[in-house]
Amino acid sequence: MMLTKGVEALTNLKKEALQMHEECKGKLTIKSKVPIRNAQDLSLAYSPGVAEPCRKISTSKDTIYDYTMKSNMIGIVSNGSAVLGLGDIGANAALPVMEGKAVLFKQFADVDAFPLCLETSNTEEMIRTIQLAAPNFGGINLEDIKAPECFMIEEKLKDVIDIPVFHDDQHGTAIVTVAGLLNALKLVKKDITNVKVVLNGAGAAGIAIVKLLYHFGVREMIMCDSKGAIYKDRQHGMNELKEEVATFTNQKQQSGALEEVITDADIFIGVSVGGLLSEDMVKRMASDAIIFAMANPEPEIMPDQAKKAGAKVIGTGRSDFPNQVNNVLAFPGIFRGALDVRASDINEQMKVKAAEAIASLIKEKDVAEDYVIPNPFDERVASVVAKSVAQAAIDTDVARLKLTTSEIEKKINQRFSNL
Amino acid sequence: MMLTKGVEALTNLKKEALQMHEECKGKLTIKSKVPIRNAQDLSLAYSPGVAEPCRKISTSKDTIYDYTMKSNMIGIVSNGSAVLGLGDIGANAALPVMEGKAVLFKQFADVDAFPLCLETSNTEEMIRTIQLAAPNFGGINLEDIKAPECFMIEEKLKDVIDIPVFHDDQHGTAIVTVAGLLNALKLVKKDITNVKVVLNGAGAAGIAIVKLLYHFGVREMIMCDSKGAIYKDRQHGMNELKEEVATFTNQKQQSGALEEVITDADIFIGVSVGGLLSEDMVKRMASDAIIFAMANPEPEIMPDQAKKAGAKVIGTGRSDFPNQVNNVLAFPGIFRGALDVRASDINEQMKVKAAEAIASLIKEKDVAEDYVIPNPFDERVASVVAKSVAQAAIDTDVARLKLTTSEIEKKINQRFSNL
Repeated sequence: MMLTKGVEALTNLKKEALQMHEECKGKLTIKSKVPIRNAQDLSLAYSPGVAEPCRKISTSKDTIYDYTMKSNMIGIVSNGSAVLGLGDIGANAALPVMEGKAVLFKQFADVDAFPLCLETSNTEEMIRTIQLAAPNFGGINLEDIKAPECFMIEEKLKDVIDIPVFHDDQHGTAIVTVAGLLNALKLVKKDITNVKVVLNGAGAAGIAIVKLLYHFGVREMIMCDSKGAIYKDRQHGMNELKEEVATFTNQKQQSGALEEVITDADIFIGVSVGGLLSEDMVKRMASDAIIFAMANPEPEIMPDQAKKAGAKVIGTGRSDFPNQVNNVLAFPGIFRGALDVRASDINEQMKVKAAEAIASLIKEKDVAEDYVIPNPFDERVASVVAKSVAQAAIDTDVARLKLTTSEIEKKINQRFSNL
Repeated sequence: MMLTKGVEALTNLKKEALQMHEECKGKLTIKSKVPIRNAQDLSLAYSPGVAEPCRKISTSKDTIYDYTMKSNMIGIVSNGSAVLGLGDIGANAALPVMEGKAVLFKQFADVDAFPLCLETSNTEEMIRTIQLAAPNFGGINLEDIKAPECFMIEEKLKDVIDIPVFHDDQHGTAIVTVAGLLNALKLVKKDITNVKVVLNGAGAAGIAIVKLLYHFGVREMIMCDSKGAIYKDRQHGMNELKEEVATFTNQKQQSGALEEVITDADIFIGVSVGGLLSEDMVKRMASDAIIFAMANPEPEIMPDQAKKAGAKVIGTGRSDFPNQVNNVLAFPGIFRGALDVRASDINEQMKVKAAEAIASLIKEKDVAEDYVIPNPFDERVASVVAKSVAQAAIDTDVARLKLTTSEIEKKINQRFSNL
């Protein structure tokens, strides 16, 4: 009965979503901030008045932030090669997702975002195209690009363009996951530098999570893929990225399947496939185990099973369970903060501060088993994240605008008062 | 005194334009058509509902027009290599112009337009980048790209992408010029197939104008460049485009400077530099001469001088004289029409019909020396152009949507009622 209801609800949702998309014929529209009612308006917004800001920019490049949409515009770039739940569907079919993402940027943080779905699977072409289009944007959000291409594209772009590049599937997920873990650890009274973490899934999100956890001081980590634990000099199924992960994880060079290395882990993080964490494995974890089972739609273990097996805190990627790891908690505020200080990068310190900011919204006394991550519609989130990220950009010297803390506060409060 | 006033007005305009641009920090913003108030909204506009339109598009590519912004979005592409009055200022400095153009598209015809300033002077790279980004757009407006690159880019793009490509500096100018000439010829009671036209300036606009005039039946045309009349087998200062022009103009293969070949011309068209048409040359033209002197800001001859020398109708590119050749009369309606029938091209017939539509807005009895071109703020223009262009797209079989004439009428009326 429950199952039938669920299936019915999903069928209705699909129908409704399709109808909504057909009615609106695209979720985004362009709006002009200036009126064109007469020749005078025309001469200011277009010819001949427009020549003045052009001249200024041509002699002093950074004034482009003063006179153009670049100051609040990001590009959402994808080639549709790894769309969540759909796989490699290509640039055209990915457009509805990127438009949806732009809607979220706008509604959660007043960030203007424009989709650029690029019809290529060639990494060099992706990089070059984004580089050529960079003048129009104050930041680039990479989305739904398959691994390992996504890593190369992000890394290379960070070198060649002077605006922030952020692959949300990696870093957004990592930031929200770590935010949840920070609160969960407060609940079970364990120190992040003392816990054992086992992570399953060596894709984009998994690699970003272990890197961010390392920045937070986690030193006992094992990443597993379908061949089991990853360790230095493993002979099979390695690649450049796994080799890199092996340099700072699994110091004891443990080998073996997930079900072996899970023993005594304080934290399990799943970014893999549904159902592969058994109750028995959870039982063999340390006491007060924390489980973030984020495979979608079916988690690595269902929350009720994990609870039954003794886990203390369980997070998933789903909105119908507590502690949803939802990227929307991170990306709008992160780009808001980066744009408002005209950052040239979104660096590790900015990500660290974003995770801490998200975690901080739940006071220590309010942290509970079913409340370690704020609700996606908690209106405080994007603003707090934006301020922390802007401050971190200034502190790490990647901001073109050197605002004081109170200037950041004021500017960002004003942004959110417009929403 | 007059001069001082003019200089003062221009200085004020510059100051005001700069201030306006600084205050708005970009003239464009993105607006969401759908609300995100709760988890249900989120599940329709984004995950998991968004997967449905994605699936549809991946199995049937043209449904992208039903479910995405492509149906009403064009890209305004430039590399800033030939910005009006400023020259080759590059992609960054050209952004204010492209934003201004997008404002005009929106305000005159409810066309969503997004600037893509591309940081390259390499023709092949421009073409490839636009090709890769084509999924996001229902059309491409090329802007301020220098000749001869602009010709190659437009020509090649028309082959490789299945959405309309339109270089406004060429075709927009040509369409409005021809519209004005059609009415001017009614006034002087001359037949377009019987007139002699001399055009000065072999750039993007000039070449487009002679081509469009040829489509209208003009057979006696001479194009001049700085070396004088262009004719087949001329030995100096030729290029591929001028060779092409020489195949259908100057049938008598006249050589000589502008001041020689101008003799007995019914029409002079200037897309060159200010001041080079003398009163004496005008005097040697045929009676009831028509002069479109479109160099900016100084026309090839000032209207009062041309009048004094006997010209009947004078048009310029300036808003402070009668008969302004302003592209805004063409491009908004042209793309409106192309988008509304999901055209794959903007072909010659569509351009012909656009010019006729613009001309038709001035009734024959109302045509006057100082009124052969409608005012840019004449609200009827874009709608009438859009309908003619949509019909021509269907008639020439480049429309994906085969609407009837009354369906076109209804759809476009509705668009303009939203404005």
